[in-house]
Amino acid sequence: MSYPPETAGAIMTKEFIVLRSTDTAADVIDHLRKEGPDAETIYYLYVVDEQKKLVGVVSLRDLITAPSDQTIETIMSTRVVSVLVGEDQEDVAKLIKKYDFLAAPVVTEQGTLVGIVTVDDIIDVLEEETEEDFGEMAAARGSMDTNISAFTAARKRAPWIIMLMFLGLITAEVIGQFEETLEAVILLSVFIPLIMDSAGNTGTQALAVVVRGLAVGTVDRSTVGKMLKREFGTGIMLGIMCAVTLLIVIPFLYGSFVLAGIVGVSLLLTLSVATMVGATIPLIINKLKIDPAVASGPFITTLNDILGLFIYFSIATALLQYLPQ
Amino acid sequence: MSYPPETAGAIMTKEFIVLRSTDTAADVIDHLRKEGPDAETIYYLYVVDEQKKLVGVVSLRDLITAPSDQTIETIMSTRVVSVLVGEDQEDVAKLIKKYDFLAAPVVTEQGTLVGIVTVDDIIDVLEEETEEDFGEMAAARGSMDTNISAFTAARKRAPWIIMLMFLGLITAEVIGQFEETLEAVILLSVFIPLIMDSAGNTGTQALAVVVRGLAVGTVDRSTVGKMLKREFGTGIMLGIMCAVTLLIVIPFLYGSFVLAGIVGVSLLLTLSVATMVGATIPLIINKLKIDPAVASGPFITTLNDILGLFIYFSIATALLQYLPQ
Repeated sequence: MSYPPETAGAIMTKEFIVLRSTDTAADVIDHLRKEGPDAETIYYLYVVDEQKKLVGVVSLRDLITAPSDQTIETIMSTRVVSVLVGEDQEDVAKLIKKYDFLAAPVVTEQGTLVGIVTVDDIIDVLEEETEEDFGEMAAARGSMDTNISAFTAARKRAPWIIMLMFLGLITAEVIGQFEETLEAVILLSVFIPLIMDSAGNTGTQALAVVVRGLAVGTVDRSTVGKMLKREFGTGIMLGIMCAVTLLIVIPFLYGSFVLAGIVGVSLLLTLSVATMVGATIPLIINKLKIDPAVASGPFITTLNDILGLFIYFSIATALLQYLPQ
Repeated sequence: MSYPPETAGAIMTKEFIVLRSTDTAADVIDHLRKEGPDAETIYYLYVVDEQKKLVGVVSLRDLITAPSDQTIETIMSTRVVSVLVGEDQEDVAKLIKKYDFLAAPVVTEQGTLVGIVTVDDIIDVLEEETEEDFGEMAAARGSMDTNISAFTAARKRAPWIIMLMFLGLITAEVIGQFEETLEAVILLSVFIPLIMDSAGNTGTQALAVVVRGLAVGTVDRSTVGKMLKREFGTGIMLGIMCAVTLLIVIPFLYGSFVLAGIVGVSLLLTLSVATMVGATIPLIINKLKIDPAVASGPFITTLNDILGLFIYFSIATALLQYLPQ
């Protein structure tokens, strides 16, 4: 293959049937009958001119139902949706999906027909892209294959795990900054996981919504503002619900209303911020022309951990004198 | 529709073309030409007997290329792959994908042809299932739609977030058990996020591999043992790599080899366990006939947090006397 991977050119087949606009329906059917075509699909027949430029399309269905003496010119549709040979396979998949096509013609910049992409190739592309997105979201890029060895899997997953571990050392540094506060009220440390998990979970929810929205096309320039406003509202509401729950539960478990207030307010602020981070980061990454699923999950989780713990310990430090020591 | 949602019956079309085995190729083409069929696809023509039972299939391609006087009986393929009307739409999608079909016939238990599922319906099903899996993995079930209000989104996401927050309170309890250890060496608390994040990330990687493997069918009864062995090996190797890195970095940052040893060994054990948990939980959930993607991510992360912190504080408590206080 002389085309770059993951483009229309790389996945297209060159086995297709070409018609001239002057042929009649009967000619074509007769021709098809005699030739017993090798073409991958004969359900769409493409019409080209003398320069091999794509000028129309006839479905086998239209051909069958047309009067035998009609010429292709009168049967064919001249509004052919085609894709460029260098187009990303994911965009080709979106197009075929959108129009419920069985195939799409592939043309050069000059409009010359060079191949077709069929719907079964597209299903494979969609599966592949989903698998990639899944792997990226979980920082398991390249190790989704269940057939590779433990060593290969570890080698592919290790870079992310080690990089994220270093981010974990930054989080350690954030907590380290509040060592005096922690020393005064050791009980504060028990809520570290709760703050981290809640921040991580709400961020990941927002992330999943945005990554899928970008993949299927429901999030674009015109809807992004509305979507961000929605996510911000969602974050605040989730924060209020969690804060109220904790204001009831923590005094009961740990006997301190001040502690409950600190954890509750921290969580309210953290979830509002975490949801926005989860929704914004993939948009920025996408803007930079990088796949927004690339390890977004763990990065957003770690960033939200840092923000959440900073908010929590800042509030706790400010209210330290009111806490039972 | 009288069929349960997400079954072949619910997504099938009832517009299809039926042939008798005694018709000739020319008869059928003539018939198609005159009728200008309304059927959603005429690319596969199904052959039924007097009892409306499915007995064969002829592709429009075979029909066109056959000599005009041949009967359908001699052209048709009697090895028809069909799906039952009650079959799960995801299984129908897998079948069509596997065989690169444009459509599949839907039959009752008695073998009566009642409809067809076309490839474009299948693409929608695959997209829908992917979206579901994405949402479930991120505990954002039902809120993947970017068109719903902030209130609706918060209402759909809140149950998971609040349930997971209660799990966070269990994690708090685990740390609370080691309050004396923490009080003696406050520095131990700064590594809580590192242990949690690393456990969560490796668990999520294993989870993603298994959930996708189950969805696309590469993980099944025959491969599950091999896969689990692979994941266990991967976990140990990741653990060794992280432990070695920390044994170098922590003494440099925090001036204590004992602390480095505690964090390193804890991480080695935690990652080995976390990878197995990440691989095993979705298998168990799948065995219980529940979609393994259902909020598996956050649950596995929380479970791994608890295990990781328990391992970490247990080792730290055992070695407390050797730590700088």
